[in-house]
Amino acid sequence: MLNVAIIGASGYTGVELVRLLSNHPNVVLRMVTSRQFAGQPISQVFPNLRNKVDLICENPDIDRLCASADLFFAAVPHKTAMDLVPQLRRAGRKVIDLSADFRLRDQAVYEEWYQPHSSAQFLGEAVYGLPELYRRDIAGSSLVANPGCYPTSIILGLAPLLKAGAIEPTTIIADSKSGTSGAGRVAQLGSLFCEVADGFRAYKVGGTHRHTPEIEQELSLLHGSPVRVTFTPHLLPISRGILSTVYARLQPGYTADAISQLYREMYADEPFVRVLPPDILPATQHVRGSNYCDIGFSIDQRTGRIIVLSAIDNIVKGAAGQAVQNLNIMHGFAETAGLSAVPLFP
Amino acid sequence: MLNVAIIGASGYTGVELVRLLSNHPNVVLRMVTSRQFAGQPISQVFPNLRNKVDLICENPDIDRLCASADLFFAAVPHKTAMDLVPQLRRAGRKVIDLSADFRLRDQAVYEEWYQPHSSAQFLGEAVYGLPELYRRDIAGSSLVANPGCYPTSIILGLAPLLKAGAIEPTTIIADSKSGTSGAGRVAQLGSLFCEVADGFRAYKVGGTHRHTPEIEQELSLLHGSPVRVTFTPHLLPISRGILSTVYARLQPGYTADAISQLYREMYADEPFVRVLPPDILPATQHVRGSNYCDIGFSIDQRTGRIIVLSAIDNIVKGAAGQAVQNLNIMHGFAETAGLSAVPLFP
Amino acid sequence: MLNVAIIGASGYTGVELVRLLSNHPNVVLRMVTSRQFAGQPISQVFPNLRNKVDLICENPDIDRLCASADLFFAAVPHKTAMDLVPQLRRAGRKVIDLSADFRLRDQAVYEEWYQPHSSAQFLGEAVYGLPELYRRDIAGSSLVANPGCYPTSIILGLAPLLKAGAIEPTTIIADSKSGTSGAGRVAQLGSLFCEVADGFRAYKVGGTHRHTPEIEQELSLLHGSPVRVTFTPHLLPISRGILSTVYARLQPGYTADAISQLYREMYADEPFVRVLPPDILPATQHVRGSNYCDIGFSIDQRTGRIIVLSAIDNIVKGAAGQAVQNLNIMHGFAETAGLSAVPLFP
Amino acid sequence: MLNVAIIGASGYTGVELVRLLSNHPNVVLRMVTSRQFAGQPISQVFPNLRNKVDLICENPDIDRLCASADLFFAAVPHKTAMDLVPQLRRAGRKVIDLSADFRLRDQAVYEEWYQPHSSAQFLGEAVYGLPELYRRDIAGSSLVANPGCYPTSIILGLAPLLKAGAIEPTTIIADSKSGTSGAGRVAQLGSLFCEVADGFRAYKVGGTHRHTPEIEQELSLLHGSPVRVTFTPHLLPISRGILSTVYARLQPGYTADAISQLYREMYADEPFVRVLPPDILPATQHVRGSNYCDIGFSIDQRTGRIIVLSAIDNIVKGAAGQAVQNLNIMHGFAETAGLSAVPLFP
Repeated sequence: MLNVAIIGASGYTGVELVRLLSNHPNVVLRMVTSRQFAGQPISQVFPNLRNKVDLICENPDIDRLCASADLFFAAVPHKTAMDLVPQLRRAGRKVIDLSADFRLRDQAVYEEWYQPHSSAQFLGEAVYGLPELYRRDIAGSSLVANPGCYPTSIILGLAPLLKAGAIEPTTIIADSKSGTSGAGRVAQLGSLFCEVADGFRAYKVGGTHRHTPEIEQELSLLHGSPVRVTFTPHLLPISRGILSTVYARLQPGYTADAISQLYREMYADEPFVRVLPPDILPATQHVRGSNYCDIGFSIDQRTGRIIVLSAIDNIVKGAAGQAVQNLNIMHGFAETAGLSAVPLFP
Repeated sequence: MLNVAIIGASGYTGVELVRLLSNHPNVVLRMVTSRQFAGQPISQVFPNLRNKVDLICENPDIDRLCASADLFFAAVPHKTAMDLVPQLRRAGRKVIDLSADFRLRDQAVYEEWYQPHSSAQFLGEAVYGLPELYRRDIAGSSLVANPGCYPTSIILGLAPLLKAGAIEPTTIIADSKSGTSGAGRVAQLGSLFCEVADGFRAYKVGGTHRHTPEIEQELSLLHGSPVRVTFTPHLLPISRGILSTVYARLQPGYTADAISQLYREMYADEPFVRVLPPDILPATQHVRGSNYCDIGFSIDQRTGRIIVLSAIDNIVKGAAGQAVQNLNIMHGFAETAGLSAVPLFP
Repeated sequence: MLNVAIIGASGYTGVELVRLLSNHPNVVLRMVTSRQFAGQPISQVFPNLRNKVDLICENPDIDRLCASADLFFAAVPHKTAMDLVPQLRRAGRKVIDLSADFRLRDQAVYEEWYQPHSSAQFLGEAVYGLPELYRRDIAGSSLVANPGCYPTSIILGLAPLLKAGAIEPTTIIADSKSGTSGAGRVAQLGSLFCEVADGFRAYKVGGTHRHTPEIEQELSLLHGSPVRVTFTPHLLPISRGILSTVYARLQPGYTADAISQLYREMYADEPFVRVLPPDILPATQHVRGSNYCDIGFSIDQRTGRIIVLSAIDNIVKGAAGQAVQNLNIMHGFAETAGLSAVPLFP
Repeated sequence: MLNVAIIGASGYTGVELVRLLSNHPNVVLRMVTSRQFAGQPISQVFPNLRNKVDLICENPDIDRLCASADLFFAAVPHKTAMDLVPQLRRAGRKVIDLSADFRLRDQAVYEEWYQPHSSAQFLGEAVYGLPELYRRDIAGSSLVANPGCYPTSIILGLAPLLKAGAIEPTTIIADSKSGTSGAGRVAQLGSLFCEVADGFRAYKVGGTHRHTPEIEQELSLLHGSPVRVTFTPHLLPISRGILSTVYARLQPGYTADAISQLYREMYADEPFVRVLPPDILPATQHVRGSNYCDIGFSIDQRTGRIIVLSAIDNIVKGAAGQAVQNLNIMHGFAETAGLSAVPLFP
């Protein structure tokens, strides 16, 4: 059994990691930390965990952490992660970092979108934790940068098309809609029930959302040269789920069957990507609580565009579930270990 | 006082018409029809109307209808409308038709997207009831084709840009999200609470939604030559509201200030269009229950695209409210008569 | 035109007061205050108000307030109100206080449930602002204590029964369910969308909610001797609405018709109480956005209990709307002035 | 491995059974039936099942059913069940019936609330499938009548009190609130998103809901003599979850500690009942997707009443999960087999 700990367990990603790990056959959760709730049982912070998990939230202490576990999930904000992760790595511990701090390969790009990077020497070591693209690298890695939720949905949606050169890369637009858990468990006006419920809006429009460089990095690598996208996030009045509607002009000659073939080939052996037939469309409620990414597409013959629809649960495949998938790959466990739940519907 | 009647009052558009008209200073609602609920008080079908409206739903009978009112709101499905409207017109009655049957100027286009048109001779008489574009024509008209909900949001969002030639018309993509009332008050599995709540999905993707030709007709007229758009509707887990996120490449040289100026000029005197400053974004919850269309935009400098965001209440500005606005224009009433409610928030 | 001001306009009650007053035919809103948003346009804090209200939020200053208006809505927390209201009253201004500070007639009871009362000398002057019980007193009053939301629904539901002696007063149980706006526009974990949505729970169970003494004061007055109730509030995943389900044992001999008669008699001329026929049940969605209180009941013959169901919009009849109704009574305006909107459904 | 089949798999209970059984370590799901969707893959009817279950919905045929499995879940409406179950029993098959047809021990009571019973000879054989009360009987049974959702929450909430004689049985009131999945996957106006969302109402008030006799049967058995309750169901705008708020007068002398002790003793070894400390209250969102019943209580010292709060997921502990728990008991599997998922929050 592998001993693991979660640093920053009192957010929505944290509680989801606890939920998934508590049913994992190869893992024992040894410690959870939370500055805000230190001293309280995690099952008091999140009563869904009652009778399942009896850990007490602790203040993060690097020595006690290292004594407790061999692999760490860092579910702390960016900037905090870049201080914490090096300490764990220097102590020889494996880390799956769920922040943005080690996702961008280019320090300059990181610093353009975030702030100065104090641990840039670890950027080269980090592997971008999208198993469908980097499974082999993840298997050999000790530091995995777990992808962002929006990027996961968009990159998986476009990968087969970009690899095959089936679309014009200058025409990519990603219109994404996320559940409110993506805003975190933070007491702020904009996340109140009455502000979000029965409503809908966009935010950080016009190329200002920090997931943009992460999306472009991976799309550019898939395409083989720099790609820029217009990315628009929206806030849905649901707790869980992202649907990305991605537009691009199709290169001449691609039929629906040919496109379908590209998806089926690339994802044939993927345990968590479900490719839908042409014109069958995914829905967030059909992946709820699961690690699946459901992908569908339609071709608009009148305008020559393909519309790709990609649905994930933002807390699972977009965060905690993908992190567990990465753990499974890093340790040679069955890739679906702890992740076999059927989506909860309704 | 103008005598009016609503044909097809038992849908969500019907009840909203009743709600708006019951507080209208210049109008008396004389009759409501509903085959399904004939003989029942409308306030039993919609208990929100208790004590406010005491009409009984009647079976539609053309003679009784004509005897009751001078202006009719036809809130019946397309195809039914093309049979009904000519009878009312031949009897000299004014009609605001909320179906699609008289919105498309070109019979061939109508028949391509719907079915054969049995009253095509009335197409020429009908005025497309978007006051911001056709106020003068509406004022003199006896048959107004009330616009669709999606088209209203998209056309108002793009009109200033197309008129000014500020965007490349081949690059227009409209990603729209609608509340579930848009699916009508019809007992069908896909509209059940448990199917829609806590979820999100697209439908009729790839240029297959019937609002597409209506959008293109008006955008083409604004541009001066044919425009084709990629239009993707989505279903939101809210009752009311449409947010359209519209993308296009900006022609060189347009700054945010210049764009802002285009919107403010075109909509300066419009009572129901609220233009937001650059990068201030609309939300459906801020127009709820009102006839407003809130429009905002951002420019993505990195990709050269403008992103226009347009929010309406689909049952009000997208249907019943716009119909009342048209009535006001047709009869020389104050354009805001019956429509002065402040949006309900939260 | 009456000049009014709202002190504490940045909560959900505040914005609703602004909404209602902006369409009031006899009133001009002169000032809104908010410490948190001082200097910002109220239409920026609440974008639903755009183009309708152009006031800037101000810091509350007693001299400037008194110079601006003749009647004040105090929408500040309890304890703050007991400092503020005396200043306004000493300056000869009328006040409708939406806090709990002047609702309880007995200072000792207030201090048992809240804290020491620093302005107890005003308790005698204050009138409990439930028009259905105290219309005449309100008309002559300069200080109205606007009722709490839960008490409004429960007292209106029980008044005819208690007045007639139709129920056993020791058997009253009020099981109430409120929308989340009742928790205020306060950034706190428990009010976040993800904590409330798709869930349901009770809170302050077992006679601990501070609305209990207010409910009991009024029920006791109706009954003629002290009444104690078991009151259980619950949190609904909706923004607006309270449904109270109230239980009591019926005295022998009361039929449904007789009970119905009691309700119809007491509320015959009430503009905002809609009495439903036996076994027809109210719903919060049918009073949304309106000042109505819908009341229905059923008799459980098997157990000898009556079950009364009372639905209001907690922000309207439970707060802002009732305050405007009180204003109308105090100034001799039509009681429905500014309050004639039909409930918004769906 | 046990071969099982689900008769009536296209409702919300059906899909939940499929979800739970597909991860059950000791069971193979061999057949699913649905008249409505016969010939379609169940994963097309419920796309959450994609890649997990590849069965095709079949028309129910008793011979083919009996050839496919040894144990059957009958998830068909009452009346249909009383025709079907005897055929399966006569063929020697075990049945867990999720309808009401075999829950009531007294045929006369059944016929008073439902209709004539055509298979009353099986009533004696059937065991009421509430494991916390009848585990031993279930273990030896071949026909289990799976309890209703409301009764499960109410009976588990009251059992320790009634067994100990801690409450006055004539004073019991159960105010229950259920998610909309309880209304079934049936295309009807009242279950539409726009009718339910953002609203709340009671239904079947006054002792008219058919779960009443089932509740009373079990409470009477616990108490030792007939008990009647006032039971009021309400419809929550959520998909899953029931919260029952149950009131009764406490017998003299019971402290919170003593009550707590009663609950802890009765449920000490129960895998699916989580007893909360006094004044800690359950919430439906903390049992979502799980087989837990969370029970809390408060004592209202002022009125001498105890308020018991009981939360379940109506589709799991209230239907499919309890059925799987019964299967586990009938076959000597670990009682938590297939049911170990942590509740999904948020």
